[in-house]
Amino acid sequence: MPGIAYLGPEGTFTEAALRAIEAQGLIPPAETLDPSPLTPIPTESTVAALAAVRAADADYAVVPIENSIDGSVSPTLDSLAADAPLQIFAELTLEVSFTIAVRPATAAGDVRTVAAFPVAAAQVKHWLAARLPKTELVPANSNAAAAKDVAAGQADAAVTTALAAQRYGLQALAGDVVDEANARTRFVLVGAPARPPKRTGADRTSVVLRLDNAPGALVAAMTELAIRDIDLTRIESRPTRTELGTYMFFLDFVGHIDDDSVAEALRALHRRCADVRYLGSWPTGEVAGAVPPPMDEATAWLDGLREGHP
Amino acid sequence: MPGIAYLGPEGTFTEAALRAIEAQGLIPPAETLDPSPLTPIPTESTVAALAAVRAADADYAVVPIENSIDGSVSPTLDSLAADAPLQIFAELTLEVSFTIAVRPATAAGDVRTVAAFPVAAAQVKHWLAARLPKTELVPANSNAAAAKDVAAGQADAAVTTALAAQRYGLQALAGDVVDEANARTRFVLVGAPARPPKRTGADRTSVVLRLDNAPGALVAAMTELAIRDIDLTRIESRPTRTELGTYMFFLDFVGHIDDDSVAEALRALHRRCADVRYLGSWPTGEVAGAVPPPMDEATAWLDGLREGHP
Amino acid sequence: MPGIAYLGPEGTFTEAALRAIEAQGLIPPAETLDPSPLTPIPTESTVAALAAVRAADADYAVVPIENSIDGSVSPTLDSLAADAPLQIFAELTLEVSFTIAVRPATAAGDVRTVAAFPVAAAQVKHWLAARLPKTELVPANSNAAAAKDVAAGQADAAVTTALAAQRYGLQALAGDVVDEANARTRFVLVGAPARPPKRTGADRTSVVLRLDNAPGALVAAMTELAIRDIDLTRIESRPTRTELGTYMFFLDFVGHIDDDSVAEALRALHRRCADVRYLGSWPTGEVAGAVPPPMDEATAWLDGLREGHP
Amino acid sequence: MPGIAYLGPEGTFTEAALRAIEAQGLIPPAETLDPSPLTPIPTESTVAALAAVRAADADYAVVPIENSIDGSVSPTLDSLAADAPLQIFAELTLEVSFTIAVRPATAAGDVRTVAAFPVAAAQVKHWLAARLPKTELVPANSNAAAAKDVAAGQADAAVTTALAAQRYGLQALAGDVVDEANARTRFVLVGAPARPPKRTGADRTSVVLRLDNAPGALVAAMTELAIRDIDLTRIESRPTRTELGTYMFFLDFVGHIDDDSVAEALRALHRRCADVRYLGSWPTGEVAGAVPPPMDEATAWLDGLREGHP
Repeated sequence: MPGIAYLGPEGTFTEAALRAIEAQGLIPPAETLDPSPLTPIPTESTVAALAAVRAADADYAVVPIENSIDGSVSPTLDSLAADAPLQIFAELTLEVSFTIAVRPATAAGDVRTVAAFPVAAAQVKHWLAARLPKTELVPANSNAAAAKDVAAGQADAAVTTALAAQRYGLQALAGDVVDEANARTRFVLVGAPARPPKRTGADRTSVVLRLDNAPGALVAAMTELAIRDIDLTRIESRPTRTELGTYMFFLDFVGHIDDDSVAEALRALHRRCADVRYLGSWPTGEVAGAVPPPMDEATAWLDGLREGHP
Repeated sequence: MPGIAYLGPEGTFTEAALRAIEAQGLIPPAETLDPSPLTPIPTESTVAALAAVRAADADYAVVPIENSIDGSVSPTLDSLAADAPLQIFAELTLEVSFTIAVRPATAAGDVRTVAAFPVAAAQVKHWLAARLPKTELVPANSNAAAAKDVAAGQADAAVTTALAAQRYGLQALAGDVVDEANARTRFVLVGAPARPPKRTGADRTSVVLRLDNAPGALVAAMTELAIRDIDLTRIESRPTRTELGTYMFFLDFVGHIDDDSVAEALRALHRRCADVRYLGSWPTGEVAGAVPPPMDEATAWLDGLREGHP
Repeated sequence: MPGIAYLGPEGTFTEAALRAIEAQGLIPPAETLDPSPLTPIPTESTVAALAAVRAADADYAVVPIENSIDGSVSPTLDSLAADAPLQIFAELTLEVSFTIAVRPATAAGDVRTVAAFPVAAAQVKHWLAARLPKTELVPANSNAAAAKDVAAGQADAAVTTALAAQRYGLQALAGDVVDEANARTRFVLVGAPARPPKRTGADRTSVVLRLDNAPGALVAAMTELAIRDIDLTRIESRPTRTELGTYMFFLDFVGHIDDDSVAEALRALHRRCADVRYLGSWPTGEVAGAVPPPMDEATAWLDGLREGHP
Repeated sequence: MPGIAYLGPEGTFTEAALRAIEAQGLIPPAETLDPSPLTPIPTESTVAALAAVRAADADYAVVPIENSIDGSVSPTLDSLAADAPLQIFAELTLEVSFTIAVRPATAAGDVRTVAAFPVAAAQVKHWLAARLPKTELVPANSNAAAAKDVAAGQADAAVTTALAAQRYGLQALAGDVVDEANARTRFVLVGAPARPPKRTGADRTSVVLRLDNAPGALVAAMTELAIRDIDLTRIESRPTRTELGTYMFFLDFVGHIDDDSVAEALRALHRRCADVRYLGSWPTGEVAGAVPPPMDEATAWLDGLREGHP
């Protein structure tokens, strides 16, 4: 039975992303003819979700890759760059906001302790200071665990998700809570390498570059994109984990491997870099930047020259 | 009385970095003639340490900026990029390793619960699985807090620092514990803008760029460094926090504002970018890469041309 | 009957180049099955030779394009860039040296006047000053015409070619005369646009670019070659003849339109430039510089990605 | 007595340019206090005029450097690049058109032979074919010599200048004759190296580059200009005369050595190139392209950083 791993427990934002990816039909058809729906498989970490795909214990994983407040999700990037190759097939962006949940009949004035995953705590810090001052923060292992801790009486209120609050029988003291507007997380659907989804004209391609440690190596690689008018939408450096000061680079750009100019650029990067890991080309729904320039007219011109018809 | 803020409580790695920075004489002399030593001021967060400098509650702050495993320390970067300008005056790199500490007379076999700051827990995960299996992780608010929690009987063992273990009267079950070799953290000494420390020939300069959202803007900015043979040692993108997909860029490179080629490059970046925030030039002890090319001979040639002596 | 135009009259260096091109089998087979040899057609100028091809009065023309002393031959370049497209199919380089020819029985001491094409006169100026001082230069319309003028008694000695001296019944006072060693002229075989000669691995490709008049337009175009490690062997600017200070650019580089990286670069130039005129790809015998990097391995990698086999 | 060499004989376009340069006050004041006017010194060639300056036989030379029809004047460029350094101090552009001159009382119908300097003959070829068909061309050594030849009865009509026609007592059969409109020649005033004329805001700077024979060397040098938004107005390659296929490059750009960005670029070229020969910075009257970007604001910013005032 095909499965799809995600950062659990049930009720996390990641599960919500998984539900949305499935609902939007973004999961490529399995190679088998098995018509049964994908079974969600909660894992204890993002890295574990990806490991499940590598071990063929899951067909896909849904993992967060970028947050508008905190930036890249390092464990996701590091796992994508290491070990056996994986590939991204879809993405989905969720608005991030929290539910402050309590056991039934608890009033705001009764709250002395607040359970929160530290990352979530940081995102509602100002709200808590204003609305629940003089409470003590109790660390929880996830947003869902915070709800569970409150249900178990280990804290009075939880910074959690709407879904988790509901599952653990809690009531919302407040909803849509977040200090900073526009907080969003982008999730990706990851599987074993396969043919990329078809080009839609609104696609994203992602690669990981390892470069020789020479001045100008990165700018030379980036110039391979810039000179082809390919719109670099994200660049992230991550330590190689072997030497402080040596990095690998994650580059996202607009376009699909089946766009001529993207294909050219990939080939050029492969030639220039110590290593290029292709992380996939997939649809973004809306175009994420400037689309790659079409090459049809230039290709026709070139073909004409070869036939002696300038 | 001059003070120097750091991420507390006492016993953190940051305090150890502060002590080392002071011991190596890397703190610029205060403008006042006050001869008294700087008073360490523990704060609850990195951001709070920097805020203390901005509020003139501290002369300096010591904050972590980069880790060989996790990469950049986002709150440090974001705080340096926002609000009133700050400047970096020194850096110090510490090997990261932990002490597993228990109350006196506790044996390994007695440990059921382990208090750990989540980041630290991640860095000793394999060690714990091998040496303290079947124990439960209890989140703590810092490495020092983990020691305090154990002293208070809230957990059996702490993943902590040697210094904190000592301060809280704990004993080391193991020292120099870390899953991954070469784990190091780089700390920086931050103060209000002032004249940079003198050029030593082994210096680092850091800037934050905000770019117009045009394809090629980043590569054009980086070319300003590459064409001058300035060695870019780090590039980090961080979300601008206003729009998912828009970034600011942190660039570190070898050299000092008083190196001619670095001065040229800064001027060029200022001209080219929507905004450049200078984060300082400071000594690195060892050279961190290729030094900027000297311009003396070329400058002499240029001066000769102006005088009619080619 | 197929014909091949050249700068006449008989006996010029250009005729010698034509003979060598034919002897080396560098003339592409005519589309017709006419097995008869090509008839040399002398013309009064390089431009007239090219015009004969455009008018279909000749199948090919042989014209000088570059001289190691004087640089590019402007009328050849200008004619290739204007009017109906032409294409280069072969090249041949000749050492340039002159014969000083006199009527039989004339001694060096008898020479009072020397007939010379002005370009040739410039190339033997020092020789004449040393060996035939106190003689007067008489302008001639070509190297061959100088020999004819001497045969007609209009001057005592001719700066001419070995072949022309022979044809006009003159004797060599001196041979292999040239002031500057290494003087060589490169000639090209030009015809109507057709399929380029097959790639040999030692080929040259030539284009004419017209650029929008924007700072950086030329360097951007040249970067399309440089970034692909295509070796630019020549760049020549020529005025557009409409406005002083506006130029078109002739670029020669190593490689063939059937080299993947050259094809990419041509396509990129077509996309980037106001106009690109392709002047052909043809064999050079010896490689004229660094060969374009092979793309086979990178192409195989790209094809693998598309099939899901990284 | 100070002198100024030019391509003679009297009556050439170059003499006309010399007169105009003097009239416009473009000649820098001599270092001596000698108040006497400069004496024109006719020479037999452009190269001889420059040699006179090198030998201190003349203070300055006026030589043609570029023609809108034929492009660069190679002997001028080659002489500027070789031997002892010279420097350009001014420029002047003349419209090129010819006078067709005859002896008094000669009618168009009487003309059988036309004396012409070959370069001039090429520029009035269509006019001659239309108005004086069936005439024979007789080569002359200069435009002025053509007039002299007609005065001496060696030909019936001369392609010459208005000034030469007048001096040799000829009458104009036609004036302002030229096949192609917009034919213009740019002349430069050349002297021994000295302080450049003061920056006017509408200046030109010129250099000769010799590059290591490496792919990308030229584009790298040109990028030093492009990245500083310096407008390259001309690039010319000339063979080095030692090896076919090796070149030196003449670059003209808008701006003055006292423009900060031009100074930076010169320094960078000096650092990057095997050799840079500075040919001067001088006023152009009208701006010849995009002016170099001002650096004052960026310099002030940089100075502020050095003082601790961001």
